[in-house]
Amino acid sequence: MDYNKLSLEMHEKNKGKLEVTPKVAIETKDDLSTAYTPGVAEPCRVINKNPEAAYTYTCKANTVAVVSDGTAVLGLGDIGPLAAIPVMEGKSVLFKRFANVDAFPICLDTKDTEEIIETVKRIAPSFGGINLEDIAAPRCFEIEQRLKEELDIPVFHDDQHGTAVVVCAGLINAFKLTGRKWEDCSAVISGAGAAGISICKLMQRFGIGNVVLVSSKGALCPGETFMNPAQAKMAEVTNKNKERGSLADVMKGKDIFIGVSAPNIVTAEMISTMAENPLVFAMANPTPEIMPDEAKKGGASIIATGRSDFPNQINNVLVFPGIFRGALDARAKAITESMKEAAARAIAAVIPDEEIRPDYIVPDAFNENVAKVVAKAVADEAERAGVTR
Amino acid sequence: MDYNKLSLEMHEKNKGKLEVTPKVAIETKDDLSTAYTPGVAEPCRVINKNPEAAYTYTCKANTVAVVSDGTAVLGLGDIGPLAAIPVMEGKSVLFKRFANVDAFPICLDTKDTEEIIETVKRIAPSFGGINLEDIAAPRCFEIEQRLKEELDIPVFHDDQHGTAVVVCAGLINAFKLTGRKWEDCSAVISGAGAAGISICKLMQRFGIGNVVLVSSKGALCPGETFMNPAQAKMAEVTNKNKERGSLADVMKGKDIFIGVSAPNIVTAEMISTMAENPLVFAMANPTPEIMPDEAKKGGASIIATGRSDFPNQINNVLVFPGIFRGALDARAKAITESMKEAAARAIAAVIPDEEIRPDYIVPDAFNENVAKVVAKAVADEAERAGVTR
Repeated sequence: MDYNKLSLEMHEKNKGKLEVTPKVAIETKDDLSTAYTPGVAEPCRVINKNPEAAYTYTCKANTVAVVSDGTAVLGLGDIGPLAAIPVMEGKSVLFKRFANVDAFPICLDTKDTEEIIETVKRIAPSFGGINLEDIAAPRCFEIEQRLKEELDIPVFHDDQHGTAVVVCAGLINAFKLTGRKWEDCSAVISGAGAAGISICKLMQRFGIGNVVLVSSKGALCPGETFMNPAQAKMAEVTNKNKERGSLADVMKGKDIFIGVSAPNIVTAEMISTMAENPLVFAMANPTPEIMPDEAKKGGASIIATGRSDFPNQINNVLVFPGIFRGALDARAKAITESMKEAAARAIAAVIPDEEIRPDYIVPDAFNENVAKVVAKAVADEAERAGVTR
Repeated sequence: MDYNKLSLEMHEKNKGKLEVTPKVAIETKDDLSTAYTPGVAEPCRVINKNPEAAYTYTCKANTVAVVSDGTAVLGLGDIGPLAAIPVMEGKSVLFKRFANVDAFPICLDTKDTEEIIETVKRIAPSFGGINLEDIAAPRCFEIEQRLKEELDIPVFHDDQHGTAVVVCAGLINAFKLTGRKWEDCSAVISGAGAAGISICKLMQRFGIGNVVLVSSKGALCPGETFMNPAQAKMAEVTNKNKERGSLADVMKGKDIFIGVSAPNIVTAEMISTMAENPLVFAMANPTPEIMPDEAKKGGASIIATGRSDFPNQINNVLVFPGIFRGALDARAKAITESMKEAAARAIAAVIPDEEIRPDYIVPDAFNENVAKVVAKAVADEAERAGVTR
């Protein structure tokens, strides 16, 4: 299939992919007087007295902004806010399709960290949550962190956490198949950007025994001089044995390879130096760090990629619709680490133990159950942790 | 009908009035690969090379932001951005219902002029137009002016111009009935805020003979000390005979009364001091400056109000859907004075000359023709004036 051609045609025919539609009919003067003046003044008055009533009477209750500055879009890089619209519309389409969340693309004409933070805070009243998308590292870290601190609605940078949640879901099921436990495993993560660091943190939350982050310049280790501040911070809390060197060096003896980096940088030979029957998640897109057949040659027991044409696609569409659905349902003020953990466990549990197989450790993107169980798990955890309004 | 109660019920039942829905189905992996990755990269690449292609491939082509800071909402005043959402949703519903424009409410958590301008500029890439709404005077003037100068998409403050366009449409037809001409008429406008000033300017564009703006402190006249800068500027170009004094003073002898001010401030006695068979547009909401039966007692020949339960409702739903439809259709860079004039003439012309009557000078809000003819007139004028992309 020529998806490029199909996609251009689809986008041109429809002028994009989203529309904003009324949930109420306006056919009579009474309809007009109820949905608009004079009747509309009443919900306004009620919300003016009690701001929380915005969740009862307005679309804020179910609406998420998909916010991007267009600086790290797909594999295309810094293509600017206008060229980012098709991706943000696509994301919004998936929010509605999989979890009935009303998502709206907000593409920003600024790349400045402070200006992005400021702008999102100023438009926040209309929204029940903020999904940050395709914002370049390292500023995406500060933007998310600050917005989490300064807003009382959920803020979630999907590029960081979406992949992390599905990776951990996949690992949970892979561990069931191979009889491993988090604390006994060691892992290498190739790619020390937004996604790599978030995957690392969530794996640590699950109790991974040892994890080494590797950038294009080598393994993150205290004392190395090539690290940015976010990487230096991670070096302090990872890499138990203070390993230094290249990806090939630190892959030796590890149980798990996680790739969110670059195409074709891993060989079957490198896989063969890992621990026995290693797990290989090679998620560079569209070309993985190593193709599945090569990874198998190297001895990989379970292989996942980012692609829909191989088994075990690590697709964050399994995460963001359900996680925001749950957060909105619970009127959560934030999406916490424990809510992400709950989401990963819920995704893993969608596949009954007896159906888990080396080529089926994560559910299919179209499995209609996923968003529902993720939403429930996330909402329950929000309630339990007391982060609801 | 208890619209307050009905409205609360409607808003609670639906959690607001708007949803964001896909225009494309996502049922198969091919759909996903076309609407999202990998296919979506192609429209991104095309737009990156040619930014104007955003109008071909994205929802920007048909999307308008309904932007408010919540400071001048209906008659409720400064109720804040959360409490303003129901009104902005209502406006968005009407945009879709009457002109298939996808409008989205953006309620801002700032009242600062510079911050509002900055924020709207930063979120502009997602939108094909900006409808400013319920922003208090006088800052609404600077915000609209600056955004018009600094953005290359249409910016329109509906509170100012929507009413002005319908008022002028109504006057065009009232003049046909009463054999008057713009240049022979004198008018008083009660209310020297955003709406009053915009009505004044559009009447001047049509060639009104004399017009006097009156604030709650009296007639605007050079030398008066109660005027704000916007009013002082208007004083220079209105009030030919340098009249001073109260509303009652300056109504004497005038052909037209336009009220966008306060309830019950005009008496039948005051109407009786006007020229013979005066036109009275008393549009304070929900209670007009003078009730129609009182105005009639004073000798008014044609009476209009802002209410749907009296004849001749001056309702800006006749304007904003069609004016943005036309601007978007023509890919206009702005909504100019000549486009507003064209809109007023188009609205007036919806009623055939032989059907115009004292109680039927403007079309009904549900007249399905209005948005279409306004859109066509506005698009044609944009093309003619060369303000298209």
